[in-house]
Amino acid sequence: MRNMHDVTVKWIFFLLLVMAGKAAMAEGITSPDGNLRLDFVVNSSGEPVYRLSYKNKAVVNPSKLGLELQDDLGLMDGFTLVEAKTSTFDETWKPVWGEVAQIRNHYNELAVRLEQKEQDRHIVIRFRLYDDGLGFRYEFPLQRGLHCFTVKEEHTQFAMTGDHTAFWIPGDYDTQEYDYTESRLSEIRGLMDKAVTVNASQFVFSPTGVQTSLQMRTDDGLYINLHEAALVDYSCMHLNLDDKKLVFESWLTPDVLGNKAYMQAPCKTPWRTVMVSDDARDILASKLTLNLNDPCAYEDVSWIKPVKYVGVWWEMITGQKSWSYTDELIAMRFGENDYTKIKPNGRHGATNERVRRYIDFAAEHGFDQVLVEGWNEGWESWGGSSRDFVFDFVTAYPDFDVKMLNAYAHSRGVRLMMHHESSASVRNYERHLDKAYQFMADNGYNSVKSGYVGDIIPRGEHHCGQWMNNHYLYAIQKAAEYKICVNAHEAVRPTGLCRTYPNLIGNESARGTEFEPYDGNKPFHTTVLPFTRLIGGPMDYTPGIFDIYLNFMNHDNHGQIHSTLAKQLALYVTLYSPLQMAADLPENYESHLDAFQFIKDVAVDWDESKYLEAEPGDYITVARKAKGTENWFVGGITDEHARTSAFVLDFLEPGRQYVATLYADAEDADFEKNATAYRIRKGIVTNKSKMNVKLARSGGFALSLTEATPENMKGVKKWK
Amino acid sequence: MRNMHDVTVKWIFFLLLVMAGKAAMAEGITSPDGNLRLDFVVNSSGEPVYRLSYKNKAVVNPSKLGLELQDDLGLMDGFTLVEAKTSTFDETWKPVWGEVAQIRNHYNELAVRLEQKEQDRHIVIRFRLYDDGLGFRYEFPLQRGLHCFTVKEEHTQFAMTGDHTAFWIPGDYDTQEYDYTESRLSEIRGLMDKAVTVNASQFVFSPTGVQTSLQMRTDDGLYINLHEAALVDYSCMHLNLDDKKLVFESWLTPDVLGNKAYMQAPCKTPWRTVMVSDDARDILASKLTLNLNDPCAYEDVSWIKPVKYVGVWWEMITGQKSWSYTDELIAMRFGENDYTKIKPNGRHGATNERVRRYIDFAAEHGFDQVLVEGWNEGWESWGGSSRDFVFDFVTAYPDFDVKMLNAYAHSRGVRLMMHHESSASVRNYERHLDKAYQFMADNGYNSVKSGYVGDIIPRGEHHCGQWMNNHYLYAIQKAAEYKICVNAHEAVRPTGLCRTYPNLIGNESARGTEFEPYDGNKPFHTTVLPFTRLIGGPMDYTPGIFDIYLNFMNHDNHGQIHSTLAKQLALYVTLYSPLQMAADLPENYESHLDAFQFIKDVAVDWDESKYLEAEPGDYITVARKAKGTENWFVGGITDEHARTSAFVLDFLEPGRQYVATLYADAEDADFEKNATAYRIRKGIVTNKSKMNVKLARSGGFALSLTEATPENMKGVKKWK
Repeated sequence: MRNMHDVTVKWIFFLLLVMAGKAAMAEGITSPDGNLRLDFVVNSSGEPVYRLSYKNKAVVNPSKLGLELQDDLGLMDGFTLVEAKTSTFDETWKPVWGEVAQIRNHYNELAVRLEQKEQDRHIVIRFRLYDDGLGFRYEFPLQRGLHCFTVKEEHTQFAMTGDHTAFWIPGDYDTQEYDYTESRLSEIRGLMDKAVTVNASQFVFSPTGVQTSLQMRTDDGLYINLHEAALVDYSCMHLNLDDKKLVFESWLTPDVLGNKAYMQAPCKTPWRTVMVSDDARDILASKLTLNLNDPCAYEDVSWIKPVKYVGVWWEMITGQKSWSYTDELIAMRFGENDYTKIKPNGRHGATNERVRRYIDFAAEHGFDQVLVEGWNEGWESWGGSSRDFVFDFVTAYPDFDVKMLNAYAHSRGVRLMMHHESSASVRNYERHLDKAYQFMADNGYNSVKSGYVGDIIPRGEHHCGQWMNNHYLYAIQKAAEYKICVNAHEAVRPTGLCRTYPNLIGNESARGTEFEPYDGNKPFHTTVLPFTRLIGGPMDYTPGIFDIYLNFMNHDNHGQIHSTLAKQLALYVTLYSPLQMAADLPENYESHLDAFQFIKDVAVDWDESKYLEAEPGDYITVARKAKGTENWFVGGITDEHARTSAFVLDFLEPGRQYVATLYADAEDADFEKNATAYRIRKGIVTNKSKMNVKLARSGGFALSLTEATPENMKGVKKWK
Repeated sequence: MRNMHDVTVKWIFFLLLVMAGKAAMAEGITSPDGNLRLDFVVNSSGEPVYRLSYKNKAVVNPSKLGLELQDDLGLMDGFTLVEAKTSTFDETWKPVWGEVAQIRNHYNELAVRLEQKEQDRHIVIRFRLYDDGLGFRYEFPLQRGLHCFTVKEEHTQFAMTGDHTAFWIPGDYDTQEYDYTESRLSEIRGLMDKAVTVNASQFVFSPTGVQTSLQMRTDDGLYINLHEAALVDYSCMHLNLDDKKLVFESWLTPDVLGNKAYMQAPCKTPWRTVMVSDDARDILASKLTLNLNDPCAYEDVSWIKPVKYVGVWWEMITGQKSWSYTDELIAMRFGENDYTKIKPNGRHGATNERVRRYIDFAAEHGFDQVLVEGWNEGWESWGGSSRDFVFDFVTAYPDFDVKMLNAYAHSRGVRLMMHHESSASVRNYERHLDKAYQFMADNGYNSVKSGYVGDIIPRGEHHCGQWMNNHYLYAIQKAAEYKICVNAHEAVRPTGLCRTYPNLIGNESARGTEFEPYDGNKPFHTTVLPFTRLIGGPMDYTPGIFDIYLNFMNHDNHGQIHSTLAKQLALYVTLYSPLQMAADLPENYESHLDAFQFIKDVAVDWDESKYLEAEPGDYITVARKAKGTENWFVGGITDEHARTSAFVLDFLEPGRQYVATLYADAEDADFEKNATAYRIRKGIVTNKSKMNVKLARSGGFALSLTEATPENMKGVKKWK
């Protein structure tokens, strides 16, 4: 009750300000469905203040807006509201790839022009109110009073109405690869130390600093999500919590000099977003982040295709093989070694023989591509030494025959996937980018997994700063010139830019499967990611590990996959991505070909998606209709608690029959004790069929629903 | 006498160390002519120490060597001398362009291998002793104990033997564009404040910090010069003086984190050089810096040609014209303005009309190229605002027709010279470099003046740091791929790299003529530059201003050229460069066509150079034989004192007659009161002829000596 009381007091104060002789200073709009209301006011100090409510319940208490500038009075106060324009927008657009075939972009807009009279300058704050949330940004029109300026900090507040439950990771300038913590806002400070685990490059800035997208749940049943959209030519926003007042404030990533952004008018900030609903499924289904991004920038998108792939990677992650070719002492300067004369270490992963094995496996099982890491010179000593020039991205180790392997792959209907580890030396990467992409085009590659492991060079810059954000987009735009798709790891978290640049088919930007063998991921991790990391765009999570207990690892210092095998299958549906890897080794799939069938069958592009069940940190069940077909795939996962998922297949076409194949945890399955126990059942279903699926602790299920034909129905009985 | 006493004590101590039971720890070599002696010892603390003497006189007292590393015990002490190798080298090589047709590279070498036993690692210090000085460097062989490391500071000492007179500018991480100060070493601290004048980017690090090349004169008549050679992948060295002990120590340029260099073995530092002679002319004639650089890296150098040029530049420097096209308020983001719809300011310099005027002038008077600055979009607001993306280097203003002007120039036997102002944003420049060079190649340009005005982006890096040194060389090497010559302004001072990369045909890296209209250059400036800045390579000083009092400038806030007109002519000979500009406006030359004849005649490439008279800070007289001809050109300059230059033309071929044309100060000339008073005399001379030329205060003379033919002798009498 304390909080509700506070809210009321603040709101009354807000209204008093509005009425205190400055009536012209207040404006408001509602969402198209009328559930959300945004109010804006310039207070008596000339500070911009907004407030957001949902079904008459406060979501964001009155919160200040503004920017602090370097060598300048700033854009914090002294404002007069000189103009307020409202408008409505409604269109439907088709993404190049996605969870759905078409997306409605429908909002009411309020654009307020605020003037600092003495400085003879003005800014615009633009609010767009959707049924599922709010987006707003600062705009800086062309003017002499505000031409080139440096942002010291953006002070955008999000005043919470209570001590909500949050799913958070530490705010960090360099990495998002943390396990989530579920706690009250007031508990963040006490839990921060434990939440900060080791990464190759990290910079935590505050004991109450957290990252977006931040998912919260209020005690009265609201789901609130804070993030940003269209992060272009600006630094990434984190949130710092005043845990006395429960007010979040934007905390931008600094550059090496401590500045947050360098701006040249006319320009604008990214959108700050507040998604809200009383149904958690609406958060997952929201397309607000994409809608706030610009339409596709490319005329021709025919070359952009979703990809299902395998790769020479997990055997390096798990320590059986090495990225590097030799363990000998060699020159550290790129190009100074003749690898043909250096003794190989015998553990190199990316050999002709091993890659052919993967190509054969991919061809046999219908995968599009084979990723190969560690194929190029330079891996012997690139970590931790701040070396400028490690890779040239075109020179293969002597045991990796680029021409032969690409020819072989193409002859088998498969492509190789390129790998560019930049070693976070972006000067070096940019210098080589054209030649590296041309090399790809010349050899028949059309997608690249890029990486930014380690501290950024130029030294002192951060992975999430304006400098790097500019680079990531540069790499994507330049890739488009060569018709190349990009899957960037260790890059800034996505903010819906894949709408504008759909060759950005994936990102890591969160803790993926690669952490499982060592520090591990919490069982609830994948039930949180769709509410947080995936709000901005797809993730290359690399699911599909069947060897849950990592039996093949040749040392004892390892963990396990914190999931059942069935849950690994479910992730292909619950973690939406147009780029999905079957991350385990061919050998491990070949010993479970019945379960592997689901990974072979599941689509990577969709016409429809229905979120059937969802609770952040607990469970998610989603049904998706494969692009251009009548086939559906359903995935369900749970956290460390077993549960039963119950749903009706009412999304199926009425009157039709489907062959259902369910891949579920066995009765006695348990992610710790019996993770690989699964059962596969088949049956004929219709849109009236009801499913009751038991999920083990950290378990899951995958369900494929294929239109019934005389052939596939043969011997299959009615589902029960 | 105090100093001599100190020297003796130090030397005895040095010898004692050598004899104190560590006999194997001392080594020494002499120069080929026996005048110089280098001694090396590892002292009882395991510190490397060297000493240099000339004709039995100490030049460098015992001085320590070593490097301080980050997170490491360092390479300062604990060394054992495990190997000493001596060798001799003697070869003669031909520079692509230069002061002479061939250069002898003759030295005795001592390479000492020093081991830190506990760390199981070793380094090599390599000394090369020439007749005209010493070069030495640190080398780091491939080894596990010293693989990748970060230099916190290099502690190379140069212990002076007395309170010498020095010609110095402030040590600065970003600029060399200072006026020189002549003072005793002990006076540097007191004069530093006055010596630091304003520049667009500057960072002075110490009250006794000075730059190399540093020229000194001892009380007993030695000329000592400290500099470095082959600055590659390392940061530029400054010198910091302990003005109690009169010991200079290396002070490297830091990166943004304060680190001085990032090293990967096998690798090496640049050479540290100590040139010494008892005749100042030997310093000017020395080729030690070039000799310490690697041979030419290019197979084909046929495309590299010296250049004499004019350009649309001085009218902007002097404020009559503007680089920018408009004064309107326009978007700060590159590419967002349609210049064809923007009102021009009417003062734009690089217009079709004006450029054609220069092309016509160049064609008429035999110049190779026409530089045009301010031809491309972006000049409206690029200074001081730390903007990342200002220029794209290929988009011309609407009043500059690239195709038409290049076609017109070529039709008249002239080329345009490209101008790339990087705005010090090297990321932006590197991103555009290939396209910018390709644009040049496509349009018929083959040389570029590049600029780095303002603070460096990546922010916090310095013009003289390792980051930028890598960039400058990258730009030069890439230019070579397009057969383009580079003249980089505001870049690091040269260190003889033009031997290896002869398409580096010029640099600024010092205070040029451009300072004259405002702060001015001291009258002695050009008598110092050949002893300092030019030790590393040629300078694009842009001499040849005839309008000494800047009568054409339309405002009062300006100075004058601190030189007589005749001295402006002399600079084409005294300031050696394969790239020489006639910097004044065509209109100003057309009113002095008789004097202008010398600029038209003078060569820019030479077979021989004879330094006839030289005293740093006072005067220089040099005779040069034009490449592939029998014609000679002589230039003489003086400082603020009038003087008479007397010399014999004994460098001419015996028994031949030459037509001499002397361009000298008039009797009543004076750089302040009567700078444009000159007289031109002709006469027939031989190698027996004696010249006595009076130079006004800050005056000079130019003399051309052309083989006599019946035509050019007509009406010319014997010289007297």
